[in-house]
Amino acid sequence: MAGANVSMVKQHFLDSFLNPKSIAIVGASTNPKKMSYYMVDNLVKFGFPGKIYPVNPAVSEVLGIKAYPSLKHIKDDIDLVASAVPVHMTLDIIKECAEKRVKGVIIISGGFSEAGEEGARMQHEIAHILKQNGIRAMGPNSLGPVNTSNNFLVSFQSVGKLNRGGVSFIFQSGFYELRINWILSDFHLGVSKVLDLGNKMDINEVDALEYLAEDPDTKAIAIHLETVKGDGRKFGQLLRNTSKNKPIIVFKSGCTAAGAKAAGSHTGSIAKENDIVFDALLKQAGVLRAHSIEDLFDFAKAFEFLTPPGGNRIAVATISGGEGVISTDICQKNGFVMAEPSQRALNKLRVIFPPWDIPANPFDYGPCQYAHQLGKIYRVFLQAMLYDDNVDCLAVQLPVFGFYQDSEDLYEPFLLAKEQKKPIAVWRTGLSRRGDVLVERLESNRIPVYPSAERAIKSLSAICEYATMHEEDI
Amino acid sequence: MAGANVSMVKQHFLDSFLNPKSIAIVGASTNPKKMSYYMVDNLVKFGFPGKIYPVNPAVSEVLGIKAYPSLKHIKDDIDLVASAVPVHMTLDIIKECAEKRVKGVIIISGGFSEAGEEGARMQHEIAHILKQNGIRAMGPNSLGPVNTSNNFLVSFQSVGKLNRGGVSFIFQSGFYELRINWILSDFHLGVSKVLDLGNKMDINEVDALEYLAEDPDTKAIAIHLETVKGDGRKFGQLLRNTSKNKPIIVFKSGCTAAGAKAAGSHTGSIAKENDIVFDALLKQAGVLRAHSIEDLFDFAKAFEFLTPPGGNRIAVATISGGEGVISTDICQKNGFVMAEPSQRALNKLRVIFPPWDIPANPFDYGPCQYAHQLGKIYRVFLQAMLYDDNVDCLAVQLPVFGFYQDSEDLYEPFLLAKEQKKPIAVWRTGLSRRGDVLVERLESNRIPVYPSAERAIKSLSAICEYATMHEEDI
Repeated sequence: MAGANVSMVKQHFLDSFLNPKSIAIVGASTNPKKMSYYMVDNLVKFGFPGKIYPVNPAVSEVLGIKAYPSLKHIKDDIDLVASAVPVHMTLDIIKECAEKRVKGVIIISGGFSEAGEEGARMQHEIAHILKQNGIRAMGPNSLGPVNTSNNFLVSFQSVGKLNRGGVSFIFQSGFYELRINWILSDFHLGVSKVLDLGNKMDINEVDALEYLAEDPDTKAIAIHLETVKGDGRKFGQLLRNTSKNKPIIVFKSGCTAAGAKAAGSHTGSIAKENDIVFDALLKQAGVLRAHSIEDLFDFAKAFEFLTPPGGNRIAVATISGGEGVISTDICQKNGFVMAEPSQRALNKLRVIFPPWDIPANPFDYGPCQYAHQLGKIYRVFLQAMLYDDNVDCLAVQLPVFGFYQDSEDLYEPFLLAKEQKKPIAVWRTGLSRRGDVLVERLESNRIPVYPSAERAIKSLSAICEYATMHEEDI
Repeated sequence: MAGANVSMVKQHFLDSFLNPKSIAIVGASTNPKKMSYYMVDNLVKFGFPGKIYPVNPAVSEVLGIKAYPSLKHIKDDIDLVASAVPVHMTLDIIKECAEKRVKGVIIISGGFSEAGEEGARMQHEIAHILKQNGIRAMGPNSLGPVNTSNNFLVSFQSVGKLNRGGVSFIFQSGFYELRINWILSDFHLGVSKVLDLGNKMDINEVDALEYLAEDPDTKAIAIHLETVKGDGRKFGQLLRNTSKNKPIIVFKSGCTAAGAKAAGSHTGSIAKENDIVFDALLKQAGVLRAHSIEDLFDFAKAFEFLTPPGGNRIAVATISGGEGVISTDICQKNGFVMAEPSQRALNKLRVIFPPWDIPANPFDYGPCQYAHQLGKIYRVFLQAMLYDDNVDCLAVQLPVFGFYQDSEDLYEPFLLAKEQKKPIAVWRTGLSRRGDVLVERLESNRIPVYPSAERAIKSLSAICEYATMHEEDI
């Protein structure tokens, strides 16, 4: 039986939360105005291949799927239970889960340790029962996991699309709730898995990272942390070992005294980490720190779409000279040096620049537009720079959204950057990720588009920083 | 004649550029595909009350207005000439301006000192002729001035709206071009005047600031500078004297070595200012420094819409606990302390919070939504906080755009903040300023809405910083 044991060790317990063969949704509603309606709807819509058991004593079916009055009424084994019933009803559900010997429970509801003594007491009791019965739990206050590779998601928002890719997320709290659709559907980012851990009563960031470290579909990991609930030393080790192969970005909130106090009252834990210590831990582990929500997602997209450049010499193209100066400041502040393109590359640009203009980096392609189409300008510029050995990476401004008529094939010259393996970050003032054909084309071809020069160049610099931190590992 | 002299001194020469009785547009086109079409179109559309003289030898009229083959063919006096002809034709136009004895010229075209030796030589020659003839000039590379109070704007973009208000801008370069419509029409900011100075061959930032300092319609001034072309000492004095009464925000680009080099090649001037010296100059002058384009506009809106609070105790309301922790970090980093509302104020909140929840600052109103409408939540929360002496200012998160159905009257409870003279900054993830009824209602009632907690709270902190810097002046 040794062989069987090895294979059981290899199967991480979080697999039941991301690849369940069956899921029961307790509190599933037939009313599209209720959030719990979408927990079933999303699974059906995206074609989750496992069994779905809606549990609701008031209805006989949900979206054409037979519903059960309680967990006990389900005869088959159940891998995973998602509980969306109010706080005071949760304990009974947990007891049923124990009787039913399910593998895992996701507690969606809030009102536990984050809500004062009574809630903390209930959470404690639930934790006790689960532990006694060997059932692992995500939450309370979890918004549920996502695994795009098997169309599995537990979410009470109606999700538009599932953009598949290599970034996995570990979240702790409700700011994910506000952004579910944006992350999975509108942001054009390729997502592999999402683990929203809520109060971290049982499953914590160490478990989640352990799983994603070994997950072959996960290429980069983005983490939002309020508190570290697991073993800090183990977490540090995991970060260090994992980041050698997979870039990790951490955004930590509750890092000021007031913020830590707020975090304590919110997730029912006291923030113990001193921020300076935490910062040192991340640096030692070769992990990038994001200092805002925007950073976290911007950097994640850079890691998903781009490979680090061979050096820090950057060529910049803007649509006005003023924007060029601003961008150059940003480049220098973020560790880039302005590339000095070869005379050969500069000569190539003569085709698009007016006779009176001397092309120099940062390149102001504004005046080129009076005589040439944007597609030609991009093609000539990108060909010249991408084939030049003096240029390692590029940052290019698109015209303001809605200001010029975008032609459909405008994105094509940018594909050359992929071919030449030189990372390129693009920005567009007034950026819209809905209905902006050019941005959609670029991002579906893994050219990231940001809303400002600052965010584009900072994101490009994040992948450079990662490469520098791990020079010895590579 | 002493009296007449005094009155002439009072009339600043820039008045011809912002309140011209007549303007000639040289190069005005009848083709809506050409940018110079919109220079006349905008004036007609917004009802500029002065005389308009299109100048174009190829046409007899532009938009129903009689056109002239050249300036010489216009019999009446002309206050202002806007020249949009190509660089090599500009010298002839300038000579005609001299003959015609116009008061001012705006040179829209580029290709002068920013474009190498030949351009610099032409610019020099033009400057010489203008000086000899006592004609003041804006540009080259200027996008033209705006004065919303008399529907006057020189712009080759089709501008949608002119939002009137108290903020005036001084720009130097093309990044204004990309944002004209956004600033004047989409940003919901009240604008008084815009002066885009381009290459600053003649009129520079000192002239512009001198004018705006005395302009009764200008309540706050936002400046983008690449280089200081005028008398630095005089500029410093003007900043100091003006900022006592009118908040001034400066965004300086070209502040790194690489950026300064780029600025040199772009506007044909060498950036001399050491950034540390410049920073000290601003601090001494009680002027706020913006460190990004976003800062410049965000702060401008805060100054236009809000009055500084009496203290730094802030109450925060978010739609998730996680966002509350993040916001609290941001508050502390920006000099705020989390307000400790009175027991009386907290008791008022019991109406909207669930029984198990203990309302505390930062307030997570997410759980309130299960039992109450958003309008009621805002009304109860804002009434409790705005009447509480322990709270000086507020930052409130709106639901994500498109996530909840906004009711039309949702903005009304926010108006109480105006009544109580406590500044309030609002943010909305996924913010859209087009088609977002709630944001439009809020901003037309001078409640600023930002795209993130960071930008909302930073902007609120900017008005506090201004108040602190000028405590002695008030």
